[in-house]
Amino acid sequence: MQLGLVGLGRMGGNMRDRLRANGHEVIGYDRNPAVSDAGSLAELVGQLDTPRVVWVMVPAGATEATIDELAEHLGDGDIVIDGGNSRFSDDAPRAERLGAKGIGYVDVGVSGGVWGKEHGYALMVGGDHGLVKHCMPIFESLKPAGQYGFVHAGGTGAGHYAKMVHNGIEYGLMHAFAEGYELLDKSEFVDNVPGVIKSWREGSVVKSWLLDLLDNALDEDPELAGLRGWADDTGEGRWTVEEAIRLAVPMNVIAASLFARFVSRQDDSPAMKAIAALRQQFGGHAVKR
Amino acid sequence: MQLGLVGLGRMGGNMRDRLRANGHEVIGYDRNPAVSDAGSLAELVGQLDTPRVVWVMVPAGATEATIDELAEHLGDGDIVIDGGNSRFSDDAPRAERLGAKGIGYVDVGVSGGVWGKEHGYALMVGGDHGLVKHCMPIFESLKPAGQYGFVHAGGTGAGHYAKMVHNGIEYGLMHAFAEGYELLDKSEFVDNVPGVIKSWREGSVVKSWLLDLLDNALDEDPELAGLRGWADDTGEGRWTVEEAIRLAVPMNVIAASLFARFVSRQDDSPAMKAIAALRQQFGGHAVKR
Amino acid sequence: MQLGLVGLGRMGGNMRDRLRANGHEVIGYDRNPAVSDAGSLAELVGQLDTPRVVWVMVPAGATEATIDELAEHLGDGDIVIDGGNSRFSDDAPRAERLGAKGIGYVDVGVSGGVWGKEHGYALMVGGDHGLVKHCMPIFESLKPAGQYGFVHAGGTGAGHYAKMVHNGIEYGLMHAFAEGYELLDKSEFVDNVPGVIKSWREGSVVKSWLLDLLDNALDEDPELAGLRGWADDTGEGRWTVEEAIRLAVPMNVIAASLFARFVSRQDDSPAMKAIAALRQQFGGHAVKR
Amino acid sequence: MQLGLVGLGRMGGNMRDRLRANGHEVIGYDRNPAVSDAGSLAELVGQLDTPRVVWVMVPAGATEATIDELAEHLGDGDIVIDGGNSRFSDDAPRAERLGAKGIGYVDVGVSGGVWGKEHGYALMVGGDHGLVKHCMPIFESLKPAGQYGFVHAGGTGAGHYAKMVHNGIEYGLMHAFAEGYELLDKSEFVDNVPGVIKSWREGSVVKSWLLDLLDNALDEDPELAGLRGWADDTGEGRWTVEEAIRLAVPMNVIAASLFARFVSRQDDSPAMKAIAALRQQFGGHAVKR
Repeated sequence: MQLGLVGLGRMGGNMRDRLRANGHEVIGYDRNPAVSDAGSLAELVGQLDTPRVVWVMVPAGATEATIDELAEHLGDGDIVIDGGNSRFSDDAPRAERLGAKGIGYVDVGVSGGVWGKEHGYALMVGGDHGLVKHCMPIFESLKPAGQYGFVHAGGTGAGHYAKMVHNGIEYGLMHAFAEGYELLDKSEFVDNVPGVIKSWREGSVVKSWLLDLLDNALDEDPELAGLRGWADDTGEGRWTVEEAIRLAVPMNVIAASLFARFVSRQDDSPAMKAIAALRQQFGGHAVKR
Repeated sequence: MQLGLVGLGRMGGNMRDRLRANGHEVIGYDRNPAVSDAGSLAELVGQLDTPRVVWVMVPAGATEATIDELAEHLGDGDIVIDGGNSRFSDDAPRAERLGAKGIGYVDVGVSGGVWGKEHGYALMVGGDHGLVKHCMPIFESLKPAGQYGFVHAGGTGAGHYAKMVHNGIEYGLMHAFAEGYELLDKSEFVDNVPGVIKSWREGSVVKSWLLDLLDNALDEDPELAGLRGWADDTGEGRWTVEEAIRLAVPMNVIAASLFARFVSRQDDSPAMKAIAALRQQFGGHAVKR
Repeated sequence: MQLGLVGLGRMGGNMRDRLRANGHEVIGYDRNPAVSDAGSLAELVGQLDTPRVVWVMVPAGATEATIDELAEHLGDGDIVIDGGNSRFSDDAPRAERLGAKGIGYVDVGVSGGVWGKEHGYALMVGGDHGLVKHCMPIFESLKPAGQYGFVHAGGTGAGHYAKMVHNGIEYGLMHAFAEGYELLDKSEFVDNVPGVIKSWREGSVVKSWLLDLLDNALDEDPELAGLRGWADDTGEGRWTVEEAIRLAVPMNVIAASLFARFVSRQDDSPAMKAIAALRQQFGGHAVKR
Repeated sequence: MQLGLVGLGRMGGNMRDRLRANGHEVIGYDRNPAVSDAGSLAELVGQLDTPRVVWVMVPAGATEATIDELAEHLGDGDIVIDGGNSRFSDDAPRAERLGAKGIGYVDVGVSGGVWGKEHGYALMVGGDHGLVKHCMPIFESLKPAGQYGFVHAGGTGAGHYAKMVHNGIEYGLMHAFAEGYELLDKSEFVDNVPGVIKSWREGSVVKSWLLDLLDNALDEDPELAGLRGWADDTGEGRWTVEEAIRLAVPMNVIAASLFARFVSRQDDSPAMKAIAALRQQFGGHAVKR
């Protein structure tokens, strides 16, 4: 089918390729004219047949403005899909705003990163049944082959919600591997840390794609000597813990994974300064200046 | 090659099957005569050609006594393999004790559970190079096909150490999934929790064997209504955190996963009683009796 | 000076007593006529001289409606003080709403619980300098004698913010004591747990009011046998962790204290059901039904 | 009464002063002749009347050797008190070793740091009733005046055990304050962080000696600008978590406080390098080198 695709970066560009390879007509727009198929959002919309379907795949900060501008050119019966990393709570107000013009809205959580072009993207979809059904040919081509990799998770917001939880879990999984890696790295008992990681890729309980990637990384740099222990966080981890608080869900593991990223970005820790100050006060313990 | 195998339970029994299917001669001993190939440990040893190789696969609590009894019947040049869940720190004294009689010792961490018979077992091995080399035909048949699933991790104790870390990571991975599952379960945004889990099995960042198993479990019981939230722990999780403490490795995620299991087994929490008592004392807050 | 006081429950009633004992004229209103000095909010306002100062001390859920109703009867130059446990983020919009009518707004975090009547209340105040100065006679009488127990922490919201952090810390302090108490309770080494708590009340590093209260509680019930390990949370703990997330502050201790309260209120844990299901799937481990 | 005192550093030296001020005859020995009252341990013992009581107050690493050397000079009916930070599990073997020579052993956990000389030391004592009774005059003079600050907690090891738990709690209390301090420090809502700390010293729920010390530290350096966020740990925190693991006590708060100290001493985090490597692998996310 025909699809307008806004945002042709690392994710959107690959998705355009995968969709075209599956026989869809994709007209892409990007601020970068070198990759764009249209000169403007208005021009993009002008090239689409009604009812138009436009997939927005832009950085989270730009989504709201992009959709608002798009909406000026779309009309009754058209559909906007947001495949970016929006907070789930933005979906309902957005759907209402678009709905006032007769424009349908579908939220999609997309996982798979740079590997999705080849392996397919896991898609978590929220929205009205009819809208989702209309867009299924696109979803079918983006998802991996087989029975997995797609869910219509619920109404508006459910797609981004499921993706948020996915990413929260991802934080926890990564940190479990990271802690185990550090223990192996420090222990005098194990000589061959990359070999241990490799041994777990088949037959073990922890076999997983993230483990495979850790093995790849150690193949490239066996002691990770070229990296600093610094990690950003992109929103979903924070939102997951916020939701846990709202719903009274104990979430020590994912919260600890998030907090560890905060620590990794600090030059110094005010909290630990307070600890040092207290130890000096009561015990005359040594401090560092 | 020929192998004596002590312990024919869930793990040992399957391993005998897999080894025989791969052409090895396995003589098994178990306290249960219905599955045993020999009437006693002495009889088992008597049926083996020198240099004998005996794999011990008994519950952790019985390992020490079993090996001590075995050692009475073995002699110079024989090899004992411990494939059970021993604490890595038991390996060096055990190796020394056996070494005094000329008996070699190899420690092997075995992962894969009930699925290993078919898929192969991930093997993490510790011990002298020559001993490990002698036993390689057995390891080759137990491990999964391909380049993964085996490592000679280091000297005595390294195999159990690597397995310990594997299980520590396993605790963290499982708990990350568990927290995400609970959040999905509680949220009003997601209608189809098992569907969300299924959508992650391909294409997502969290795809993994544990996720596949969670999906299987939800296929059998979509709300896990037939289970209580109770989980035992079998030692390796505790040892992993103890080692983190010894080596000054921050381990919030794996420790939290371990503590959650402790909580799951408490009828009531003395700590939370203290919290309730304090809230009542300073604020007159409601308590439950 | 003269003060209108809305809400004469556990906190407000004691505050009226303390203020009157210090020579202030307090006219109180409560929905309960048995304790109220006025028949309605309108009547209360009618009894006050301009510029009126009205302190609102009602449960957090009722604050917004109470202040809105009050505002209908107040006018230019009057002052509303909110001493309840409002979320700090509610203060700025509220101040703006009142400001449109010329009504000043001061937010006050009040600590001290049922003991404040006698010992004085720690007050954390936010708002314009002039408004705070006008109300100082009230603050002076409510706070404990001496140099401590009062701060003008900043502009609108700063008082509730400081109180929120106070309560977050309180969660962490209580849980540190609670964990230590549980360890003493379980250990075979210590015969006299209440005695140990008592020994810390003077001379130790952990001496504190919360410790004194724990000792009091153990005097009443040496094994806390009459309590269930169940604890509510009243908002500030959640907001503290939410703020930590917003400001990228690592907050493992306070978050863990909050999550422990969530756990204490669960009949069963969906997360631990997932753990039990996974252990059964991969290892055939025992579960409870 | 008469007391031999071995170790006249920050703690022992102050204790000698306090005991002498209370009328006891204290003969001190230290490796540093400038403060020592005797030229050697043998000489110290020679100056004491039988039955001799010798209090050992040396750094934890030197305790075992010091007591062994002392024991060569002591005999039947003498008493050794260890007031240092020994691991509780060292007490029973030590008592047995001394007991073989008829020497009694008492373990004492001492809290109070540099402030104890003036305020008294909280004492937690383990050992036989008769031995403890014999030493009571010393304990009475070291402890603070009044009913608090002393406990005979149980048999051998109970004193060090109670002190270990005290220190574990201390870790948690300090970290709760530290997290709250960091949040205040980072927030745009609070202008006057030291003032907020000061406001809590009276009337609040968190009033405590550690809070007073934090206030003192902020008086000296309002932004703790002269300190690095670096903190050592001296054993008891680690042992507390190890005991929690042994006794299946959930201990998220104290463990997190301990792990935060580990983090504070790392130049870079291998765990966070693994996180960075994984994020780069799956998402092409930016890393720092």
